[in-house]
Amino acid sequence: METIKQLQQDFADFMAHTDFSGQPAELYEPIAYTILQKGKRLRPMLCLLANEMFGGDEQQALWPALALETFHNFTLIHDDIMDKAPLRRGMETVYQKWNADIAILSGDAMLAKAFQFALKPTKGAELAQQLGKVAIEICEGQQMDLNFETLGSVTIDEYLEMIRLKTAVLLATALQMGATVAGANESDIRHLYEFGIAMGMSFQLQDDILDLYSDVEVFGKRHGGDIADNKKTYLYLKALELASKEDRKRLEYLFTLRMDHDEEEKIEEVQAIYDSLHVKEAVGKVIADYDRKAIEALAAVSLPEERKAHLRNYAESLTGRKK
Amino acid sequence: METIKQLQQDFADFMAHTDFSGQPAELYEPIAYTILQKGKRLRPMLCLLANEMFGGDEQQALWPALALETFHNFTLIHDDIMDKAPLRRGMETVYQKWNADIAILSGDAMLAKAFQFALKPTKGAELAQQLGKVAIEICEGQQMDLNFETLGSVTIDEYLEMIRLKTAVLLATALQMGATVAGANESDIRHLYEFGIAMGMSFQLQDDILDLYSDVEVFGKRHGGDIADNKKTYLYLKALELASKEDRKRLEYLFTLRMDHDEEEKIEEVQAIYDSLHVKEAVGKVIADYDRKAIEALAAVSLPEERKAHLRNYAESLTGRKK
Repeated sequence: METIKQLQQDFADFMAHTDFSGQPAELYEPIAYTILQKGKRLRPMLCLLANEMFGGDEQQALWPALALETFHNFTLIHDDIMDKAPLRRGMETVYQKWNADIAILSGDAMLAKAFQFALKPTKGAELAQQLGKVAIEICEGQQMDLNFETLGSVTIDEYLEMIRLKTAVLLATALQMGATVAGANESDIRHLYEFGIAMGMSFQLQDDILDLYSDVEVFGKRHGGDIADNKKTYLYLKALELASKEDRKRLEYLFTLRMDHDEEEKIEEVQAIYDSLHVKEAVGKVIADYDRKAIEALAAVSLPEERKAHLRNYAESLTGRKK
Repeated sequence: METIKQLQQDFADFMAHTDFSGQPAELYEPIAYTILQKGKRLRPMLCLLANEMFGGDEQQALWPALALETFHNFTLIHDDIMDKAPLRRGMETVYQKWNADIAILSGDAMLAKAFQFALKPTKGAELAQQLGKVAIEICEGQQMDLNFETLGSVTIDEYLEMIRLKTAVLLATALQMGATVAGANESDIRHLYEFGIAMGMSFQLQDDILDLYSDVEVFGKRHGGDIADNKKTYLYLKALELASKEDRKRLEYLFTLRMDHDEEEKIEEVQAIYDSLHVKEAVGKVIADYDRKAIEALAAVSLPEERKAHLRNYAESLTGRKK
């Protein structure tokens, strides 16, 4: 894990040397406040690891890494307005700490800054095109997610498409950008992108399981929060598919109840239905499928296996945390 | 004006062949709804005229022209959320017709699309950098404008900086992009940019005057709307500077009154103070200064004067409408 720690440090140093200040302060303070918060820097790490894998110049790859982190934080600022979220990573959201107007504007400025960062290295035009594509996909995914809140029925395929757009494509693009800046060939870039999609899907579905089935202290979120919020996750949609007519009606009814209802009781009842239908195991199979696809995609990258070790270790460490 | 009509038609055709549709519909419908509304297409026209002036390929210049129009419409969608504006160009705003979440997201997607369009021609990376710079400046200008609503005192210099960032830089960038895609030299691009800034400042200050002093039917906006809204325009700030202590107190008081007050009476009283201080004439002098700067900047472009005729005619036709 020496390489990973080194890349994390290099990225932290690069961020520390980036000037996020400016005037008027109301525009720039929320940008610095958001982006300088401690985080995993998952997307920059994927970009730097992909670049390292192909022997690219790290100084060049730090720019798309910074573009990805800036872009990701822009999505958080705007999503928090839509979700009316008071907290993020234990800190007040920009929307809450300042106001919605400032959150809209500082988010807009971050999106523009992300493009500026992506344009810096020699392959800038290509990187910026990749960022443009993923930016639009993420807007599509977020809009689908908003639609699901009010839609009566959501299919499993629609849900998978939503998490692909909302989560997986950015991880895949992070790998794509790192490989692109390193000068990898098209076929390798495509395989790495597919690896990112499969990894992202697995990652998100594990999140759905862990929301309900994990040790709260390890996971750091409230137990069963998705059920309390009536979120139509994979677990819920799979349960509807497997349930008897009676159980389905009961589940649908429970997912109309709002906060004023006894939350604990509701979560327990839903979990009992899930368990009786072996929903966790069914989702586990789908996750195993994505993990297999990820392994295949990485195997198809035309590099000696030892060149792929850092990225593989890093990806495993991310999901490892959750098992 | 043959060239101008032809370029307008070419841009309209180019827009008509651009596909603004997609899924989910909630994301794409507001984009098509906004960008396909009839408009002057001022920024695309400036881009195309600058390109034509330097003998550039129109097919290449249509891309930054489309990027500019898409970008401009993104700013309108987000500004309308902040201003809680129900109408724009006589049509319901996206914020009003759909909701704020959809307006945020479809605006975000348009900003990303603007970068994609800017990246299309051969000089794409340079054009996208120019778009990134102006995008951030416009966020700064909009934030300054928001700040002015609550700030007790605003200086004339701050106001000029705000309108430079909010209005002038995008007109200047439109010219810059057209000249860039045509392959003009750096010095000419800079002079044309300066021409755009001076023209934009003149344009905005004339708007401030016309809000109060124009024939309502010609101008198409309500008479004295800026005064009714307590907007700290150049007229107001200049009046404060020139006024006696007594008049200044009265003006400041009048600019705290809200809608429930008799609007007509307030507008009349403010206008009477402005007139007694010859504020209109004072602003007229500043406008004449910017017009002179614009003429000088255009003269400094190293092309035969006849090559500049179309752009000059077009710029004059814009301000001509208002005299």
